[in-house]
Amino acid sequence: MKLATYKDGSRDGQLVVVSRDLGTAHYATGIASKLQQVLDDWNFLSPQLQDLYDQLNAGRARHAFPFDPHQCMAPLPRAYQWADGSAYINHVELVRKARNSEVPASFYTDPLMYQGGSDDFIGPCDDVVVPSEAMGIDFEAEIAVVTGDVKMGASPEQALDGIRLVMLANDVSLRNLIPAELAKGFGFFQAKPATAFSPVAVTLDELGDAWDHGRLNLVVQSTWNGRKVGMCDAGPEMTFHFGQLIAHVAKTRNVRAGSIIGSGTVSNKGVERNGRTEWPRGYSCIAEKRCIETIQDGQPSTEFMKFGDTIRIEVKGPDGVSIFGAIDQAIAAPADA
Amino acid sequence: MKLATYKDGSRDGQLVVVSRDLGTAHYATGIASKLQQVLDDWNFLSPQLQDLYDQLNAGRARHAFPFDPHQCMAPLPRAYQWADGSAYINHVELVRKARNSEVPASFYTDPLMYQGGSDDFIGPCDDVVVPSEAMGIDFEAEIAVVTGDVKMGASPEQALDGIRLVMLANDVSLRNLIPAELAKGFGFFQAKPATAFSPVAVTLDELGDAWDHGRLNLVVQSTWNGRKVGMCDAGPEMTFHFGQLIAHVAKTRNVRAGSIIGSGTVSNKGVERNGRTEWPRGYSCIAEKRCIETIQDGQPSTEFMKFGDTIRIEVKGPDGVSIFGAIDQAIAAPADA
Repeated sequence: MKLATYKDGSRDGQLVVVSRDLGTAHYATGIASKLQQVLDDWNFLSPQLQDLYDQLNAGRARHAFPFDPHQCMAPLPRAYQWADGSAYINHVELVRKARNSEVPASFYTDPLMYQGGSDDFIGPCDDVVVPSEAMGIDFEAEIAVVTGDVKMGASPEQALDGIRLVMLANDVSLRNLIPAELAKGFGFFQAKPATAFSPVAVTLDELGDAWDHGRLNLVVQSTWNGRKVGMCDAGPEMTFHFGQLIAHVAKTRNVRAGSIIGSGTVSNKGVERNGRTEWPRGYSCIAEKRCIETIQDGQPSTEFMKFGDTIRIEVKGPDGVSIFGAIDQAIAAPADA
Repeated sequence: MKLATYKDGSRDGQLVVVSRDLGTAHYATGIASKLQQVLDDWNFLSPQLQDLYDQLNAGRARHAFPFDPHQCMAPLPRAYQWADGSAYINHVELVRKARNSEVPASFYTDPLMYQGGSDDFIGPCDDVVVPSEAMGIDFEAEIAVVTGDVKMGASPEQALDGIRLVMLANDVSLRNLIPAELAKGFGFFQAKPATAFSPVAVTLDELGDAWDHGRLNLVVQSTWNGRKVGMCDAGPEMTFHFGQLIAHVAKTRNVRAGSIIGSGTVSNKGVERNGRTEWPRGYSCIAEKRCIETIQDGQPSTEFMKFGDTIRIEVKGPDGVSIFGAIDQAIAAPADA
C-alpha cells in the first residue's frame, strides 16, 4: 500500500491512503490519524489500512478525492530517528579521488553513516529554505526506509524484516559548510538542513521484484532546473543493503519504530570510453558532478544551486508509472531575509 | 513545576506532575497524557499543569501518590531531536592535552556538537545495557534542556527564550569505539548507546537564581560504585551557554518543540598546588579522569565501567534538596548474552 500525510495545520498532519496510480486518496480516519501511530502498532493497524487501500484501488472507497502531492508533508513530518548512510561507495570513491586521497579499506566492510536532525522534515513540494546561496546548496537523491522495532544486536537479515516502508529523500546539503564542520571531528550539523521526502511511502509488496534483498533495483531520476541530470541505478552498486545499514545502527542500541534510514547519494561507477572515464548515468548530487569535473578537467565547473533553482527526484516502475510521487522543490531564501 | 513520565507499558508513558520536594506525584490526566503534547502546545497546557502543581505542593491534590523514580521513563521517552554539545571546553582541553594535541582556536568561539539518537531513551533507574565490557563503558554527567519551537537563524538571546525545561543526562559513551568511529569522519554513531535522563524535568522558575542566563550555577554530583567521584560546578566554566548551543543548532534549520540539547560532560579546570595541577572537583566522566592520569603520570590507571557497576548523578539546590531526582543506574549485559 501507499501512505501519505496531508497538511492540516498540525505538526503531524493527517494520514491518507493513496491509490497505486497516485490518482486518488482517502483519509485513514477511523483507523489512525498519524503515520507514527501505525508504525507503533503495525500488526494491528496495517491490515486495516490495506483493506482501505484495496477498496480505493478498486474504486469502491466512499470518500476518495484526487491526490495532490502539494498537500503533502513528509510521510513522517517529524521522526524519532533519521540516520543516513553513504552506502554507494562509488560516491565516496569519487569524492576521495577528486581530492587525491584514498578510500580507507574499512569503508568497504563498515558502513559510513551519520545521525541527522529529524524534528523538522519538509514536504515533497515545499521550498528548501536556506540562509544563504554562499553555503553551497546541493540536493542529494536517496532511497530511504522506515523501520519497525529492531532489537540491539540484530543481524542484517533480521534487520531486513524490520523494514516497513520505502520512500525517496532529498538530503539537502550545504557543501561549503562541510569541510570546516567535518574538521571539528563530530560529523555533520549545520551542513545538513531539513530533509525532504517523497509524497508517499510504500510497503515492500508495491515494489515487486524491484525490491531485491534490501536494495531497490530501479532508476532514480534527478531533474535540476528542468534538465535531467541523473538516471542512476539504485540497485546493484549499493555497497551495503538496508539490512546492513539498520544492523549498523542497531549494533549498540535498539532501533525503534518510525526510524528512517537513508541510503546516501545514489551513485554509479564511470565507464571507459576512448581512454577516458565517463559517467553516462549522470549524478544524484552536484558535489559528485564537481568531483567528476575535477577528475576530468582539474577543476569543477558546475556551480551549486541558487535561489529559485528547482530539483525533481522521482523513481518510475517498469510500467513507467511513478512509484513514490515526485520530490519537486524550489530553493528559497528565508521569508524575512 | 516538575514533570515526569511514568511507565505504563506504552512507548511514551504517562505524564505526571511531581511535587517540589519530589515526595508526591499526580497524573496529569485531563490535561495531557504525554510530555510531547505539552511541549507541542505549551502556552495552552502548561498553565493547567502549573495549577495542578500548585495544588500538589499545597497538599490539596486529590489523587496524589508517593513519587517513585523507579517508575520513571525519561521525561521524554523518545524525542524528535537530541543534540549534544561539548560546551565545557576544559573537557576538550584535557582530552587534547592527554594526547599532546592542541585545541583549535575556533573551538572557543564555535560550539562543538553532535547529533545523537533519540528514538530509545532510557529511564533514570533503568539498566544501561551494553553489548560488551570491552567497548570501554563510560558515563557522562550532563545538563540538558528541552526546547519549544526556535526559528532558523535565532540569536542566542532569542534561543534562551525557547527553553522550556531543564534536566540531567547520562550520555553513556563507549570509549573504545570512538577513535575508529571518529576517524571515519562522520561523527559518533555506535559509540553512543541509549542516553538516560533524570526522573524529573523542571521549569526555569524552579532553579531560581541558580539559572543564570543559560547556565546552571549548581554542582553536579557523580557517584560511581558508591564513591563520590565528581562534584563539578556546572555554571561558570560552561564556555557556551544553552542559548548559544540552541542557536548553533538553529543556524540552518528550525528547531522544533521537544528538542533536547545537552551541555556535554560538566568539567572544571585544575588548580595549581605545590607545582602540580590537581582537579579537586573530580570528574563527570571516566575518560576525563584517565586524561588527568595521563597528564600527571604518563598513562591512565582508572579502568572503564564493568557489568554491575553503578552510577548516580544528582544536583542539589542550595537547600540540599535534590532538584531533578537522581539518575541511578547499573551497567548490564544484554539479557540474551
